[in-house]
Amino acid sequence: MDNRPIGVFDSGIGGLTVLKEIVEQLPGEDIVYFGDTARIPYGTRSKETVIKYFFQSVRFLLTKEIKAIVVACNTASALAMEEAQKVFDIPFIGVVEPGSKAAVASTKNATIGVIGTEGTINSGAYQKKIRQMLPSAEIIGISCPLFVPIVEEGWENSDVAYIAAKKYLLELKEHNIDSLVLGCTHYPALRYTINKVLGDKVILINPAYETAKATKNMLKDRNLLSNKIDGGKCNYFVSDDPEKFKRIGGNILRKEIAFVQKINIENL
Amino acid sequence: MDNRPIGVFDSGIGGLTVLKEIVEQLPGEDIVYFGDTARIPYGTRSKETVIKYFFQSVRFLLTKEIKAIVVACNTASALAMEEAQKVFDIPFIGVVEPGSKAAVASTKNATIGVIGTEGTINSGAYQKKIRQMLPSAEIIGISCPLFVPIVEEGWENSDVAYIAAKKYLLELKEHNIDSLVLGCTHYPALRYTINKVLGDKVILINPAYETAKATKNMLKDRNLLSNKIDGGKCNYFVSDDPEKFKRIGGNILRKEIAFVQKINIENL
Repeated sequence: MDNRPIGVFDSGIGGLTVLKEIVEQLPGEDIVYFGDTARIPYGTRSKETVIKYFFQSVRFLLTKEIKAIVVACNTASALAMEEAQKVFDIPFIGVVEPGSKAAVASTKNATIGVIGTEGTINSGAYQKKIRQMLPSAEIIGISCPLFVPIVEEGWENSDVAYIAAKKYLLELKEHNIDSLVLGCTHYPALRYTINKVLGDKVILINPAYETAKATKNMLKDRNLLSNKIDGGKCNYFVSDDPEKFKRIGGNILRKEIAFVQKINIENL
Repeated sequence: MDNRPIGVFDSGIGGLTVLKEIVEQLPGEDIVYFGDTARIPYGTRSKETVIKYFFQSVRFLLTKEIKAIVVACNTASALAMEEAQKVFDIPFIGVVEPGSKAAVASTKNATIGVIGTEGTINSGAYQKKIRQMLPSAEIIGISCPLFVPIVEEGWENSDVAYIAAKKYLLELKEHNIDSLVLGCTHYPALRYTINKVLGDKVILINPAYETAKATKNMLKDRNLLSNKIDGGKCNYFVSDDPEKFKRIGGNILRKEIAFVQKINIENL
C-alpha cells in the first residue's frame, strides 16, 4: 500500500481527460496535476526542447512526493519519456504504449491509423510501438494541426471540423484502416465528427482510457495502490494563468476546479 | 546617420512579413531578427507572461548593438511594449499604432473591425488606440484562433479557411464595417478569403506595411537612418529549431535564409 499521490503531467489542459479517467478507475488515489501552460504547445517544438521542458516538469512533480508519473501529453510521451526513465528513479506511464496496445488488440486487417500533433506523428513513436507488437502492421500516421484549436473553439461538431477532418482523414480511408488511435488528448472530443468521416467500421482508440487502465495495473503489480477506496484529492499546478485553466478545465472535468496554483517552471 | 542595425522582434516566424516590408522600404538597413519560437504562441498567454518573455527578448536584442526595436508581434505590441518603453532606453515601434492610424485614415463611416489573436483582441490595444484618434468610432474586435494554424497548413485559400472566416466575420458584416485591421502577422495571407467573405467595400489594413512606413519616418526624424542606399544584411536568431524557421521563413520571404542561429532565451 502506498498513499502518496500520482503525478500527472501534460503540456497544458488536455491531460485532464487522462486525469478524469484515472479518477474514475482509481477513485481512492490522490493526484498532483501539472500543466505546463506557459509553454504549450509541445507538439510543434523540437525534440531537444521537449526533453528540456519535460525534465523541468518532472523535477517539479518530484517535489510533491509522488509515487509514479503519468505522462498524459502525447508529444512528451513520444519524445522525452524514454530519456526521462533513464534519468529519474520513478515509474513513468505514457499514453503511447497503452494506446498502441489497444490498437493492436482491435485491428483485424493489421491496418492502423494514428493521428496526433506534428511532434507526435513525426517522432514515429506510435508507429514504432505498434510495429514492435505487430510487425506486419501497415500504419498510417497523419498530423492534424487544426484539431486542437477547433476543439478549443468548441467547434468540434461544426462544418469546419467536418471539412478539416475530411481533408486530413481521406488518406486513412483510402488505406482501409480498421482502427484509429486518437493520439492527442484533445481529439476524443472530435469522436463524432471523425466517426462521420470514417464510418462505423473504424474503431476509435482513446489512449486516455487505456492509460488509466495501465496505471491501475502497474500500481497493483508493484503494490503501490492507495488503501483508500475513494475520496482521492486532486491538486492542480500550472505555469501560466490559473484562471483560464480553471475555466476550461472545469468544462473538461464537468465539475468546478476550486484552486489552481501557478508555479515558476523555468529555473527547475 | 547611424549604421547600427534595426532589431525586429516576433514571437515566431510571422514577423518576417514585417521584416520583408522594412527591407523593401529601407533596403540599406541592417536587421537583427529574433523569433521566440520556443515559446510561441504569445497570443494565448497572460499579460504577465508576455511581459516576461518580451523583456527577455529585448535584453537579447540589446546585445546586438541595435538602434531601435520593431515589435512585429501584435500580442507583444499590445501587452508589453508600453511597459518595455518605460524600462529600456531605446525607441520601440509596435504594429498597433501604425495599424490603427491607417484604419482611422481609411474609414468613412467610423465603423472599424479588428481581428487578431485572443491576447491582442482581449487586451483592447487596437480598440483603445483607434478610439484615441477617433473618439466616435464603433470598433468591433474579434479573435480568430483558427487563422494562424490554417495559414501554417497552407490552407489559406481552402474551403476550411472560407467557412472559418464566415463564422468569425459574420458579426463584422452585420455591423457594416468599412475597414478591417488584420491584427496578426499571419492574417495578410488570408486577404483573398477575407475579401471573399466581406466584399470589396471593406478595406483591409495590413499593419506590417504601415509599420515599415512608420519605422522609416521615425528613423528619419531622429536622424538614425543608415547612410547605405541598399545592401542591408539580415541576421536571424530563434529560440527553437532553426531548420523549421529556415524552411517556413524562406517561403514567407520568397528567398533562401542561409543561416539561423539558435540562442538560449530563458536566462536573459
